[in-house]
Amino acid sequence: MFSYFPDNYMWSSAVNLALMAGGQIGQIDRWLAPVRDTKADSEAWTRAWDSMAEEQERQAVQDLEKGYRLSASVRFLRASTYHLTGERQTPPGPAKMHSYTSALSAFEKSIALNSANVERVEVNSPDGILPGYLIPSGRDSPSPVVVFYNGFDVTKEILYAIIGDEFAKRNIACLVIDTPGTGEPLRLRNVPSRPDYEVPTSAIVDYLETRPGIDSSRIGLLGISLGGYYSPRSAAFEPRIKACVAWGAMWDYGATWQKRWDTSSKMTSVPFWQLPWVMGTKTMEEALTRAKAFSLVGILQHLKQPLLIIHGEHDSAVSVEDAKTAYDNAGSLDKQLRLFSVEEGGSEHVGVDDPDPGRQLIVDWFGLRLGTTKTI
Amino acid sequence: MFSYFPDNYMWSSAVNLALMAGGQIGQIDRWLAPVRDTKADSEAWTRAWDSMAEEQERQAVQDLEKGYRLSASVRFLRASTYHLTGERQTPPGPAKMHSYTSALSAFEKSIALNSANVERVEVNSPDGILPGYLIPSGRDSPSPVVVFYNGFDVTKEILYAIIGDEFAKRNIACLVIDTPGTGEPLRLRNVPSRPDYEVPTSAIVDYLETRPGIDSSRIGLLGISLGGYYSPRSAAFEPRIKACVAWGAMWDYGATWQKRWDTSSKMTSVPFWQLPWVMGTKTMEEALTRAKAFSLVGILQHLKQPLLIIHGEHDSAVSVEDAKTAYDNAGSLDKQLRLFSVEEGGSEHVGVDDPDPGRQLIVDWFGLRLGTTKTI
Repeated sequence: MFSYFPDNYMWSSAVNLALMAGGQIGQIDRWLAPVRDTKADSEAWTRAWDSMAEEQERQAVQDLEKGYRLSASVRFLRASTYHLTGERQTPPGPAKMHSYTSALSAFEKSIALNSANVERVEVNSPDGILPGYLIPSGRDSPSPVVVFYNGFDVTKEILYAIIGDEFAKRNIACLVIDTPGTGEPLRLRNVPSRPDYEVPTSAIVDYLETRPGIDSSRIGLLGISLGGYYSPRSAAFEPRIKACVAWGAMWDYGATWQKRWDTSSKMTSVPFWQLPWVMGTKTMEEALTRAKAFSLVGILQHLKQPLLIIHGEHDSAVSVEDAKTAYDNAGSLDKQLRLFSVEEGGSEHVGVDDPDPGRQLIVDWFGLRLGTTKTI
Repeated sequence: MFSYFPDNYMWSSAVNLALMAGGQIGQIDRWLAPVRDTKADSEAWTRAWDSMAEEQERQAVQDLEKGYRLSASVRFLRASTYHLTGERQTPPGPAKMHSYTSALSAFEKSIALNSANVERVEVNSPDGILPGYLIPSGRDSPSPVVVFYNGFDVTKEILYAIIGDEFAKRNIACLVIDTPGTGEPLRLRNVPSRPDYEVPTSAIVDYLETRPGIDSSRIGLLGISLGGYYSPRSAAFEPRIKACVAWGAMWDYGATWQKRWDTSSKMTSVPFWQLPWVMGTKTMEEALTRAKAFSLVGILQHLKQPLLIIHGEHDSAVSVEDAKTAYDNAGSLDKQLRLFSVEEGGSEHVGVDDPDPGRQLIVDWFGLRLGTTKTI
């Protein structure tokens, strides 16, 4: 893996995730080289990413004064990604909230300025409003749609920056959405995650059935990282989901976390405080207990829809054995486990070391399963 | 500048150019880390980039077997960029020709597989066929077009990878094209460059006037690096060009090269053998003499069309003073010099250290001048 911080997996992985979401190495290097070279602390990390974002925001305002709308849009999108890359590593508190709300604001400006007709939508659910962005397919006729779920720590704005117009290129709409335990519900309304993720999923499908531009007989579901639990779990109980992808497999999340905790693992995407926050518990011990319910054991045999699992052979956050177990247990007749090797790249968690091949493959796979791409 | 090879400007700059053209840091790092860490020679450089490309080509074939067409297309495009990144630094000979023809082949496969309807075109000119790729605007009505010229060492495939659908997003078609002293004419037919670049430019405009999908009353011209000479020189003598951009200014190319030669500069994009090759001379001395004719002195006051010059304040290949002189001497009433500072990034030659802001700005500028974007 390209490791900008040679001794720090978490930060190096975060740099790669920012690049995966459209971050520019020159901009990142300009602001992070001092953090790396002085071995600065995590407050310096947060400040560096916010400063990087603010530089883009200032330039965007200047671009707009000259009428350069798409230049400004791209800069605001990068600003959102940079704020959020700092935010992911920042513990709950005022600094995190500042980065987060700044990101939301920059993101809104970005989509208002571009020409992709991206629409903010709000889905009613038992956990309250689930906010998302619908990226249209660009076609006049009703289009299939893929719902794209966060994992443990990313948010819909990062999902948007990762996926861009890749679904639209295959004539598929895409809904990136914050669900319980992620994004706005967690950060603005303290809504923790829940193991029975078919509940928010069904609410989202109900909503999509009301949208005239959507062919609700062709809804796919994609989840990244912990979304590799949310997505197949939901689909196992929600037959209106017609195809399902885990961008990073999950099997037994409680066991995965117990092992991290017991070994004081440094190979997680964000620090340990994230777990009680997402689980809605006061202590780590309670969180570890609650995480046990996030398991596909005894669930995955009920999944019948087409399933694709992408996993890295060198994933140090979730073992490759878990990916194989999930694949073996899935009840789907049409199922595929695509393991990315160290040699070819994409072998780290969610392929962050070389993400584009996995991304392209996932979207092409949906194109074939949802019928927008001709078969071979 | 993010310097992958800390002591080697030429190679670090080439890495950044590959990233600018869609190269992936994880892939590049996987193949170049051994070259960097063993301080390997230039043959190892060429082999590493060809191997990187061949890996993508192998994977593309496997993607295709599963019906993943766009995955394969993206991989073939990256393969083309990787072959060409090695090729740029490789002296004329069999190894260079192998990299080059491999790149052409990969590029053709890429555009055949994607859905952008990119078309290979061949323009008759006094120097023989000038081959290009026309990227349509995606609109039904006749669209303005921007012709995009190479500089000293890149080729139309790299231009395509750099610009992608950015013009199409602004409802403008784009023609990336190999002209005398570049790409296919130089490599396959030994056609050197020429100072009177309005000759090939007029041939290209003649051709565009025959294209039904093109609004030939709105033709723009963009040149990168030495293209910062070709573009304004052509426009000064070709009134059918309606707007003109130098992505990197040029003023007096002979003087620029004499200085490089006298100081044994290490700050060029490719080694010195490139100059006699492009100039069509046997010796460096003859090439330095011939390069003197590539000058905007006494020419630029004849330019009347809108002009944008992008230049980096830390450009070590062409001085910022040359950019200011070119700007001052341009006869255009609507002219702008956008200098990118070290602090904001994009300050190196053609902004290779942070290229996206310059790229977005150029395309937005054309949108305003060619009337596809509403003014502020």
